[in-house]
Amino acid sequence: MLDSNVHAQLAAILPPAALLVAPEQTRPYECDGLTLFRALPAAVVLPETEAQVVAILKACHAARIPVVARGAGTGLSGGALPDPAGIVLSLAKFKRIVSIDALARTAVVQPGVRNLAISEAAAAYGLYYAPDPSSQIACTIGGNVAENAGGVHCLKYGLTVHNLRRVRGVLITGEIVEFGGDALDNAGYDLLALMTGSEGLLAVMTEITVKLTPKPQLAQVVLAAFDDVEKAGAAVAAIIGAGIIPAGLEMMDQPATRAVEQFVHADYPLDAAAVLLVESDGTPEEVGAEIEEIRRLLTEAGATGLRVSKDEAQRLLLWSGRKAAFPAVGRISPDYYCMDGTIPRKALPRVLRAIAQWSREFELRCANVFHAGDGNLHPLILFDANKPGESEKTVAFGDRILELCIEVGGTVTGEHGVGVEKLNSMCVQFAPEELARFHGIKEAFDAYRLLNPGKAVPTLHRCAEMGRMRVHHGALPHPDLPRF
Amino acid sequence: MLDSNVHAQLAAILPPAALLVAPEQTRPYECDGLTLFRALPAAVVLPETEAQVVAILKACHAARIPVVARGAGTGLSGGALPDPAGIVLSLAKFKRIVSIDALARTAVVQPGVRNLAISEAAAAYGLYYAPDPSSQIACTIGGNVAENAGGVHCLKYGLTVHNLRRVRGVLITGEIVEFGGDALDNAGYDLLALMTGSEGLLAVMTEITVKLTPKPQLAQVVLAAFDDVEKAGAAVAAIIGAGIIPAGLEMMDQPATRAVEQFVHADYPLDAAAVLLVESDGTPEEVGAEIEEIRRLLTEAGATGLRVSKDEAQRLLLWSGRKAAFPAVGRISPDYYCMDGTIPRKALPRVLRAIAQWSREFELRCANVFHAGDGNLHPLILFDANKPGESEKTVAFGDRILELCIEVGGTVTGEHGVGVEKLNSMCVQFAPEELARFHGIKEAFDAYRLLNPGKAVPTLHRCAEMGRMRVHHGALPHPDLPRF
Repeated sequence: MLDSNVHAQLAAILPPAALLVAPEQTRPYECDGLTLFRALPAAVVLPETEAQVVAILKACHAARIPVVARGAGTGLSGGALPDPAGIVLSLAKFKRIVSIDALARTAVVQPGVRNLAISEAAAAYGLYYAPDPSSQIACTIGGNVAENAGGVHCLKYGLTVHNLRRVRGVLITGEIVEFGGDALDNAGYDLLALMTGSEGLLAVMTEITVKLTPKPQLAQVVLAAFDDVEKAGAAVAAIIGAGIIPAGLEMMDQPATRAVEQFVHADYPLDAAAVLLVESDGTPEEVGAEIEEIRRLLTEAGATGLRVSKDEAQRLLLWSGRKAAFPAVGRISPDYYCMDGTIPRKALPRVLRAIAQWSREFELRCANVFHAGDGNLHPLILFDANKPGESEKTVAFGDRILELCIEVGGTVTGEHGVGVEKLNSMCVQFAPEELARFHGIKEAFDAYRLLNPGKAVPTLHRCAEMGRMRVHHGALPHPDLPRF
Repeated sequence: MLDSNVHAQLAAILPPAALLVAPEQTRPYECDGLTLFRALPAAVVLPETEAQVVAILKACHAARIPVVARGAGTGLSGGALPDPAGIVLSLAKFKRIVSIDALARTAVVQPGVRNLAISEAAAAYGLYYAPDPSSQIACTIGGNVAENAGGVHCLKYGLTVHNLRRVRGVLITGEIVEFGGDALDNAGYDLLALMTGSEGLLAVMTEITVKLTPKPQLAQVVLAAFDDVEKAGAAVAAIIGAGIIPAGLEMMDQPATRAVEQFVHADYPLDAAAVLLVESDGTPEEVGAEIEEIRRLLTEAGATGLRVSKDEAQRLLLWSGRKAAFPAVGRISPDYYCMDGTIPRKALPRVLRAIAQWSREFELRCANVFHAGDGNLHPLILFDANKPGESEKTVAFGDRILELCIEVGGTVTGEHGVGVEKLNSMCVQFAPEELARFHGIKEAFDAYRLLNPGKAVPTLHRCAEMGRMRVHHGALPHPDLPRF
């Protein structure tokens, strides 16, 4: 329930259609892509100017009301989960492409612009925006910055943080800030990088300047089938070891390939234990030479089948399976839990063996799709929430995977963020002093912790509680996660 | 003079040869590459283990003694200038290459390792460390991280921050910290990026994991002469606008070319108003096609002469001039002041015109060398400190250039850092709220401000003072800079 004084202030800032308070209006905002967690906010606001954002944040700051910023709501870690006592600030109306500078190779866009819409607008200049998360048709650039999103091409072209020039936004106090600039480097601490991946805890973005990349003259993808997952892992090592930086290097195991094939009919080899997709882009000469070398390395590593895309339509078809892996898996299982961990490339065989073994132990199917080139795993655990105990088993399985990621020198999130989902894993990955430092940085931007409270960085109290729970009750994970 | 209690503690931690207190021993540490500023520290310590660094920092923290970390002392902004009341912590003994992982394409090195030594060690694996500041023979990787160093190839390969995986270090409290990791992305705020370019204010580094890059099969450089600096600027725009990302894109004007030619004898065209160096690297096919396109664009833009390197020796010779520009200018003028500002590429002609005009007004020669591709300028103002008033004119000229950099949307430092040199420019570039936020971040790491105090971020008091001085005395710049 929104405080009546704050409600009056918001009503003075916004037209009636941009201030939603009735549950039937706020219901669509109760969760993001992580549907396990739901909460109705006290209100949803849909500003369309920066001045409105400033006024809204000032009002909330004065009344100490939490604010959760939201893009397209496609996030997978619950970063846009509402706070029941606070408001959701949707940036859906900030969807203008402000300008494109072909010489500087930059685009100035509002945060609600969809990822793919930037590349569509830049195409006229032979440019595109490189990071391409699977959800790029729907997800917004603001959300990409908040989560430091990756994509299948980030091995060569980098994550969101490597493709940004400037972020303009508003602090909870109403102060307008700009981080970064037109220059490659900037004086002072790197607040642009700090803002990127900060999951809505530091500022509400209002304008983003992204770096654009020249569209390669040609791109070709090789699909390689393997009868053994470890051989596919060795092929990845061989390609990287040969000094090649593929534009994309993705792996899918058999459960993933089979699920995908039923969905997209890309003629994937169904009997393969693992499939690799390796992309090369550049000038025709360069791509020709690189594809030749990739074919040779894949064959030497024991590939049982190779296919090279002959034209752009074939290339997109081969990628469509990988990009549709999540919805495809959703068709063969009542529920699935998408994990997101990152490991050093060399740990790939060990982690895959462990996942296979736990899959048998927990009696839960697991489809693996991942960015093999940069070691970012997305195991999809298939389960049925209606079967007693299966949700709990799923969470326990997932926790095992994340803890193994930390053990082998990786991290608990590759690109989906921590949100509410991985708070407990953060207690495992970071020491109390490290978490305290994160909170110290938050303090410098938002002393009352009103922006997206309870996300991304666990409280020390939570971690301490979790530690006690472990001591008292053995292996019980996630003691304070709500039940499914 | 070092407190006797602290001296006793340091003497217990270090062997006698690693604790210097006599002025004749500490004299070599009185300044870095910015020799305008000098101060003798109370002591210099040369630890060789992380445990010693921890113990030293704990002792200094307890006694509230400032600590200035130092690499090779090649920095150009005074970042390693000692604090007279504090110690200098030299990392000269941290010079071990710990390991190279060819598959992960990473090297683990100690901070005192020279930039070029990493590439030399990685050459056996067909890899190298991409950022190449002009001082790469001498400068250390620790200093590169502290200043977020660039180099002539950073247009394609990025700055130091884009080529790092992990930094291990020690906070002033003695706590050991690790930022980043083997994975491409990491959970929590991006402290690795925050650490990079933090100029020694957040932690003392003890181990750095850098990303290595496959050595291109071929690199070729084109030298183009222009009879007009603006035509050279337009050629830069044409190359970038054509979608090419050269491995290097450098410009020198006539004063710079002439100074350099006397020094390296690379057969530079002495009658050219400006010279461009454009490098292409990759497979032979790719380089061949790209060099062809670059030649065409340079010719269309009005190049009066073109030369393409025929072999590696020629390529290195053509680059040697650019890399030796600073010492070469040092030979033709008693003194020179090396500026470092960054501007959007499109502002290049305007800024060059302004510099030429001020050069006439101030009656001071100015040689321009710069990373044209990414807009990072290094005007070298030639002066004679022994002529009355000339030093002051030089500083005034430099200030004009930096203020113009800010005005056109750039920044006051491209890659040399703020140090002590640019503190006043920071007051111009940043608002008090922004500076306060920088200090808030410092607070989260070093509450007593003991690590490299007085560097990188000016106090609000200093900026306020500077503002008042301006009001009272008109245009007088740098009121609190010591005289030359």
